Amino acid sequence: MADEVPETIYDVPTPSFLVDIDIVKRNCSRMIEQCKRYGVELRPHMKTHKTIEGGILMTGGTKRKIVVSTLAEAEFYADNGFDDILYGYPIIKEKLNRCAKLANHLDMFHLMFDNLTALEAIISSPLDPGKKWSVFLELDCGNGRSGIKWNSEEAVHLSKMAATAENIVFQGLYTHCGDSYTSYDRNEGLRQEIQENTTERLLFLKERLRKEGIQCKSCGCGSTPSCANPIDSMSSLTEFHPGNYIFYDFMQMTIGTVQEEDVGVKVATRVVSHRPDMNMMIVDAGFSAISYDGIQRMSYQPTGISLFKGHPNLRLFGMTQEHGKVQPIEGTLDFDMYPYGKLLFLIPWHSCDTAMMHPVYYVHSGDKILDIWRPCRGW
Amino acid sequence: MADEVPETIYDVPTPSFLVDIDIVKRNCSRMIEQCKRYGVELRPHMKTHKTIEGGILMTGGTKRKIVVSTLAEAEFYADNGFDDILYGYPIIKEKLNRCAKLANHLDMFHLMFDNLTALEAIISSPLDPGKKWSVFLELDCGNGRSGIKWNSEEAVHLSKMAATAENIVFQGLYTHCGDSYTSYDRNEGLRQEIQENTTERLLFLKERLRKEGIQCKSCGCGSTPSCANPIDSMSSLTEFHPGNYIFYDFMQMTIGTVQEEDVGVKVATRVVSHRPDMNMMIVDAGFSAISYDGIQRMSYQPTGISLFKGHPNLRLFGMTQEHGKVQPIEGTLDFDMYPYGKLLFLIPWHSCDTAMMHPVYYVHSGDKILDIWRPCRGW
Repeated sequence: MADEVPETIYDVPTPSFLVDIDIVKRNCSRMIEQCKRYGVELRPHMKTHKTIEGGILMTGGTKRKIVVSTLAEAEFYADNGFDDILYGYPIIKEKLNRCAKLANHLDMFHLMFDNLTALEAIISSPLDPGKKWSVFLELDCGNGRSGIKWNSEEAVHLSKMAATAENIVFQGLYTHCGDSYTSYDRNEGLRQEIQENTTERLLFLKERLRKEGIQCKSCGCGSTPSCANPIDSMSSLTEFHPGNYIFYDFMQMTIGTVQEEDVGVKVATRVVSHRPDMNMMIVDAGFSAISYDGIQRMSYQPTGISLFKGHPNLRLFGMTQEHGKVQPIEGTLDFDMYPYGKLLFLIPWHSCDTAMMHPVYYVHSGDKILDIWRPCRGW
Repeated sequence: MADEVPETIYDVPTPSFLVDIDIVKRNCSRMIEQCKRYGVELRPHMKTHKTIEGGILMTGGTKRKIVVSTLAEAEFYADNGFDDILYGYPIIKEKLNRCAKLANHLDMFHLMFDNLTALEAIISSPLDPGKKWSVFLELDCGNGRSGIKWNSEEAVHLSKMAATAENIVFQGLYTHCGDSYTSYDRNEGLRQEIQENTTERLLFLKERLRKEGIQCKSCGCGSTPSCANPIDSMSSLTEFHPGNYIFYDFMQMTIGTVQEEDVGVKVATRVVSHRPDMNMMIVDAGFSAISYDGIQRMSYQPTGISLFKGHPNLRLFGMTQEHGKVQPIEGTLDFDMYPYGKLLFLIPWHSCDTAMMHPVYYVHSGDKILDIWRPCRGW
């Protein structure tokens, strides 16, 4: 990238990832307010942005109570003064050494587990004197990924075992209702059904455990589609842990979570080649700047996998590493409107994936670039 | 990532990107030999690996004559003693300032252009006294991306104009025969047809220009499928500029460019969750470690978009950010074979895309980790 901090969003090198700080701050405040309204605690997920600055905004400045998706993130946030960090990923014994350092160093570092082998490994792993492991049981309430099924006997057995282990503090239940991402095309009914099921199932196990004498201090669910528009019963939970809402993206627009005005990120790209013979132009954002996330929808989604801001007739219909192929949805491309060097801004399909393609984020208010954020990488 | 350099490939943090140095060296030597045999010069593309170490191997230690896909790469290689660097991307005037620094600093820095606006911008841009711009005209010989059509009058006009401009050295013609990537499923006939067309078309324009008194010192084509298995007529070209061959990948295997034993990279990943109720397990490599490249083939390619080395019955059928969903192609998954923590190695669909997801590459010979390579990022 260029050495100098560009003055405005019209001066950034292309392609670039832009973060609209005003929208991002509003998104963060709204989620904080929403959680207050529902009487649940917010434990924001850092995986979308992976920056210190974003973490501060999402926690309302407390730097406390976050979820991360990798140990590299956990270490990055711990090194930068964050605490009460949940490593929200199924733990395996091969990663416990690094976790032990975090657990010994932080006031609160939490693990997530979904099976007996992992729990036994935690029980067998020593921490410093006076320190205990803090764990959440990961539930699958219908998402179909990792986690143990909410209605299984094993879920009860594992909770009991964790709650009674001498070196463990059992925090409770954690689920990602990622199935809410299937409610495309503003299918509010489907989203609500998923929210209801997830909430009921979490509370079902919580109640079962209560009868067995096991308290779940925490009982929470995540996913931006469900937490951005909660249903009433979700106020019975103790914690929300969404992440994408800091930025939102075209996918969230398609699901119906938000409108375009709430999306806080865009990719800046310039026209580099005209192909009138193919009714096409090339922009300098390819998969290295956008990612292939959403490509499955390329064939039937009118604008392809992204949305060019202010240019609703443009369609990103193909990518290679540094090339984006753009054609009009209808008619003939007006090349006078898109001269060489023309700057365009596109809303990516999935900001979590697009953000991680970029070593820096250009943070702006209005047109003016205020700051550069540098995300954490790796595992 | 962990601080320590792991001893062996069985100790790497997961997910990780592994580079088998012996295979990589062999791939690099073979391409150097092949170019000698065909009497063409090799100008390897850096875009796949983006490392100094890989650049040294691909140039046979000369650090001369390379192609890059971004200005960040150009600057990275220039800062590390490389020269004769072609920025193989359609230039626009907005990027000329950074290019001028490179042109002034290096013995040879080449631009690529495909239109009049760009050429006029180059002509109007001053360099240091004694310095001239060096340019290649980008042709589209059937690839359908950027470049000017090989048989257009404009191609002749632009070549003439560049060749006669006072501040420009016209190098000749450059084309990427990326259409060779469409010859999936070992469609050798299609690949050869593309190679023939590309070669004929390059030579057609070269001859036309010769008749007009314009010499093309360079007349080359790239793409790994075409340069790894050239046809005889390609010896009439002056230069090959493939890039992916340093690593190869599952896509190249599918095209028929190489066999599994020639693929120099793999992603190390561990089993983190068992879902016998879904005949599925979760591994700790999701789209953040593999990329979504190739996902279009997920539905009909038996192993999904990657190949688990030594486990031909495994299929990667879904990904989220840090989760890979794996099921057997046939039958019931034998969870005893895949205990929690089990290390698996997968060959990614497209190594160019997978490599860029990783901040470091673990370089090994046999099982032993010898080195860590750190790729350049950004633009």
